[in-house]
Amino acid sequence: MINRQLILRSRPKGPVAPGDLQLAESPVPELKDGQALARVKYLSIDPTMRVWMAADSYLPAVAIGEVMRSFGFAEIIESRHPGYKKGERVTGFTGLQGYVVIDAASPHFQKVPKIPFVSDTVFLGLLGINGLTAFFGMENAQPKKGETLVVSAAAGATGSVVGQIGKIRGCRVVGIAGTDEKCNWLTNELGFDAAINYKHPDWKAKLAAAVPSGIDIDFENVGGEIMNTVLRLMNLHRRVILCGLISSYTKKDPGMASLETVIVKRLRIEGFLLMDYVPRFMEAATQLGQWKMFGKIKDRETIVEGLDKAPDAINMLFTGGNIGKLIVKV
Amino acid sequence: MINRQLILRSRPKGPVAPGDLQLAESPVPELKDGQALARVKYLSIDPTMRVWMAADSYLPAVAIGEVMRSFGFAEIIESRHPGYKKGERVTGFTGLQGYVVIDAASPHFQKVPKIPFVSDTVFLGLLGINGLTAFFGMENAQPKKGETLVVSAAAGATGSVVGQIGKIRGCRVVGIAGTDEKCNWLTNELGFDAAINYKHPDWKAKLAAAVPSGIDIDFENVGGEIMNTVLRLMNLHRRVILCGLISSYTKKDPGMASLETVIVKRLRIEGFLLMDYVPRFMEAATQLGQWKMFGKIKDRETIVEGLDKAPDAINMLFTGGNIGKLIVKV
Repeated sequence: MINRQLILRSRPKGPVAPGDLQLAESPVPELKDGQALARVKYLSIDPTMRVWMAADSYLPAVAIGEVMRSFGFAEIIESRHPGYKKGERVTGFTGLQGYVVIDAASPHFQKVPKIPFVSDTVFLGLLGINGLTAFFGMENAQPKKGETLVVSAAAGATGSVVGQIGKIRGCRVVGIAGTDEKCNWLTNELGFDAAINYKHPDWKAKLAAAVPSGIDIDFENVGGEIMNTVLRLMNLHRRVILCGLISSYTKKDPGMASLETVIVKRLRIEGFLLMDYVPRFMEAATQLGQWKMFGKIKDRETIVEGLDKAPDAINMLFTGGNIGKLIVKV
Repeated sequence: MINRQLILRSRPKGPVAPGDLQLAESPVPELKDGQALARVKYLSIDPTMRVWMAADSYLPAVAIGEVMRSFGFAEIIESRHPGYKKGERVTGFTGLQGYVVIDAASPHFQKVPKIPFVSDTVFLGLLGINGLTAFFGMENAQPKKGETLVVSAAAGATGSVVGQIGKIRGCRVVGIAGTDEKCNWLTNELGFDAAINYKHPDWKAKLAAAVPSGIDIDFENVGGEIMNTVLRLMNLHRRVILCGLISSYTKKDPGMASLETVIVKRLRIEGFLLMDYVPRFMEAATQLGQWKMFGKIKDRETIVEGLDKAPDAINMLFTGGNIGKLIVKV
């Protein structure tokens, strides 16, 4: 059996270039005692992968010559590991490859149930990294009924759930996204009160008009000029959940923001990382699953076919090509 | 009687240039009922004045043609105002001028007591804007015994008090300042555990060595590269009191900071402005006065003589020429 793997060969300067990630083939190793072999079915494509390619951050950078790190969904096909049986399904750091060996040294794999009418991929998006990020980020944001929430990258897998949780909490919700199609999805399907296409020349005026009472919560996924524009519209003493800085990941600009506004408005900016909440994942996934079941949260996926398309898929995040969760089907 | 006034004639691009503030003379107006006339004795020279010269912020920008706004200490010399008697002393927005008329339209003037052995100027520094800023900023910082506090612009009127409150609260306190003389003052006189001269080429390594347990609180007065360096040394889930961004006030750079570190370290940045605490000024001044009386907090002043020297004094803040509170004696 041959394992196809995407190996990090060089650190991208801007977008992922041909050659930064190279396809390699190697035999799937013989299992030893204490190991399980899983076939990777779906790969979660996330902006943070671009951070892992560049430098040490909250996780060490992926080393040159290593399989590129990614989250994924896999099924156990063979096991000499006491914790896993053949046929069980897991999510975790599979990496960009066709098969993954799980053993005591593997980082955190989580078993996921087989639920009728529930797709496998939901465990990568709404019930995975993105839904959980939205859930705990919005818990930190402490939204109150009647407050105005603005979320950037609003049509992404995280932002779209953030906005819908905002609606459940009784907020006025305004999304910022990069195409009219995305904006229409947010307002027509997801119940956002307004959505602003930041590629329109007059988007700043439109955003200001969409928040007549100012902004109380900024759920920030983008950084840069979008964030600075939102900060200038915020009410005094309000809060920013700093979840991502996607505008900076492919540039040298390390997600700069104007801090003068933070003083003038006496804002509170809180950095957020999902991994602080691992012990509470089940609680959050249960709530998110209920919301989905009762139609209070809708999700959407963009699925790209083929492991070899994963580098293009990563770039798609930064050009805004996907709506909702971006997944590679291996 | 002639009133000498410094009038804002143009908005400075970088440092205050000759001609941005011009001296003018006009007769002191006749007092009407409800007005008091005060002679300005001392002017408080603060970094925020440079912000007021540039653009609207938490206060409107000073208009071109107006007397430059400043805090100051004045004595009532004539009164037809029911609230003020001749000989009473006040602090408030005197502006850069020799006399100020106080009436119902004047912003907030506060009477200050005559206390034996206590200088007039202390009401502009330790018992004025700077001490109060340090007091309430450190209240927000919630320092715990054994934590490491780093304060930038540490030899300034605010930073020096911040560090001493940190010592009172049981913190390890490290200051960042721009001359060896300032650093010696901080460690030898004020009890800072360490002080780093950021103009030394190896200051980043020295700062890292001075915080062996990492940084728990950043009391930030400077912004820019100093702030980014401090952020990178912070412990996870800690806090930044964002009080000033003096490195940016004379540049176009609007106090940018790298937000990637804020996510990676899950920091909380809180913008701080003193004017939110007006109702509690007396409480804070009483505590600060006690600390001074018992030798737990020491203050120092740099006094420049002559109203005409005020523009140079403002620039001195940005070149680092003063130690402690910078005051112009009118």
